[in-house]
Amino acid sequence: MRPVDLKAFIETLATQSGEAILPFFRTTLSVQDKGREIAGAVFDPVTEADRAAETIIRRRIKEAFPSHGILGEEFDDERLDAEHVWVIDPIDGTRAFLCGLPVWGTLIGLMRNQSPVLGLMHQPYTGEIFIGDGGSAHVKGPRGLRELSVRPCERLEDATLMTTDPRLFKGGEQVAYGAIEQSVKLARYGTDCYAYAMLAAGQVDLVIETGLKPYDIVALIPIIEGAGGVVTTWAGESAKDGGRIVAAGSRALHMAALAHLSGVTT
Amino acid sequence: MRPVDLKAFIETLATQSGEAILPFFRTTLSVQDKGREIAGAVFDPVTEADRAAETIIRRRIKEAFPSHGILGEEFDDERLDAEHVWVIDPIDGTRAFLCGLPVWGTLIGLMRNQSPVLGLMHQPYTGEIFIGDGGSAHVKGPRGLRELSVRPCERLEDATLMTTDPRLFKGGEQVAYGAIEQSVKLARYGTDCYAYAMLAAGQVDLVIETGLKPYDIVALIPIIEGAGGVVTTWAGESAKDGGRIVAAGSRALHMAALAHLSGVTT
Repeated sequence: MRPVDLKAFIETLATQSGEAILPFFRTTLSVQDKGREIAGAVFDPVTEADRAAETIIRRRIKEAFPSHGILGEEFDDERLDAEHVWVIDPIDGTRAFLCGLPVWGTLIGLMRNQSPVLGLMHQPYTGEIFIGDGGSAHVKGPRGLRELSVRPCERLEDATLMTTDPRLFKGGEQVAYGAIEQSVKLARYGTDCYAYAMLAAGQVDLVIETGLKPYDIVALIPIIEGAGGVVTTWAGESAKDGGRIVAAGSRALHMAALAHLSGVTT
Repeated sequence: MRPVDLKAFIETLATQSGEAILPFFRTTLSVQDKGREIAGAVFDPVTEADRAAETIIRRRIKEAFPSHGILGEEFDDERLDAEHVWVIDPIDGTRAFLCGLPVWGTLIGLMRNQSPVLGLMHQPYTGEIFIGDGGSAHVKGPRGLRELSVRPCERLEDATLMTTDPRLFKGGEQVAYGAIEQSVKLARYGTDCYAYAMLAAGQVDLVIETGLKPYDIVALIPIIEGAGGVVTTWAGESAKDGGRIVAAGSRALHMAALAHLSGVTT
């Protein structure tokens, strides 16, 4: 399949997963409190919608590309040594989802030889699909199709920062993040994957997170980079394995953030 | 005008203000940093969209009801001693708006003899209109019309809490809010007026805020109460003058929150 066909294919995945998810959004549903079951403390709900969507996405991938691997949040890994591996989070932002907020998204990424080459974020309730391939990125939504492009911002003091929840930073993370939050013009919480989409759309300048899984970030890398942004770990390395992540709309701003973040070891 | 006509009228205000606002959403625009001008510190941007929308809303109200008063965020008060006074915030959540997040809203409320009797919250990007009259409430959106109803939740430990930004609480406020945040099942930030709409929709149980103006809350009172919720100041008094506000989906949960909040004086 040529890249253009892959883009068409990944959009059909988004459409079909959105149809699986939306009946569960803002309705009564049975929630398994996965975090409590596993860790005994963290609140990390997973919904029927999550499982329904990932089931659909996996089925369509296997039909179209039986040799491809799949890494998803809800089910077991398959063929991770394949040349092509799909990386899926059916609902990134399950807490936003459960609260009825339209800032969660379906993340579908494609890795080729361990590098993210195509990524999609879908917000089915607002009807927005963000797609990028590292070279370019666009959004399809209520206003039709629009190219995504980061905005110029080179200094922390001019920057708008987003993070999902500042309480997730602990120890040295908290100190480093806190110093940046003190420096920026505006910090906004409660954003999940939507933060990276808004970075690519030139609405915000900086996103800083910790504790991400590969399926929380792989799909977003080609969108951010396709819009002209930079995304790495706090140590400045590839973001594809998750962990502590920083995304910026310019290289200068990314460097300014790394100056605070790169020394964090605890 | 009978109540049913007022509901039709307030919806036309929402439609027309939405048309004035949307061209400014997720686009380059000139921002006056009103907070800095006035207070020298707080970041409280106001946009061209704010002014364009309030201009339209005021014009339509004056055409239809020349004797009514108007209290709005952007322009001077008019006839606040009238029997009917409209209370308007064209963009509640200007920071969310500037970040591209679809959780801001247009708030239009109607007071009669100093009591909120009708309220509307409009999110033009998602196409949602939440309306309430204290006795009932509904939402019109992508899924058609649906009655709004709070969900049963009586204890803090079972509750989902929302607040726009925990950094807004100072001194004794911070202590009281912090105790509640520690008690609840889940706390979510970054929600603005959307939090109250989600409370009315039965998605969350508790909203706690401080520093609200009358135009931040008057329109939401008939929606919350119409959905079966309770909204007061932290002292348990009418919320219509703003200030420190607590909204809950049940009377028991409201009381549990007041037990922490009502003693705050600093």
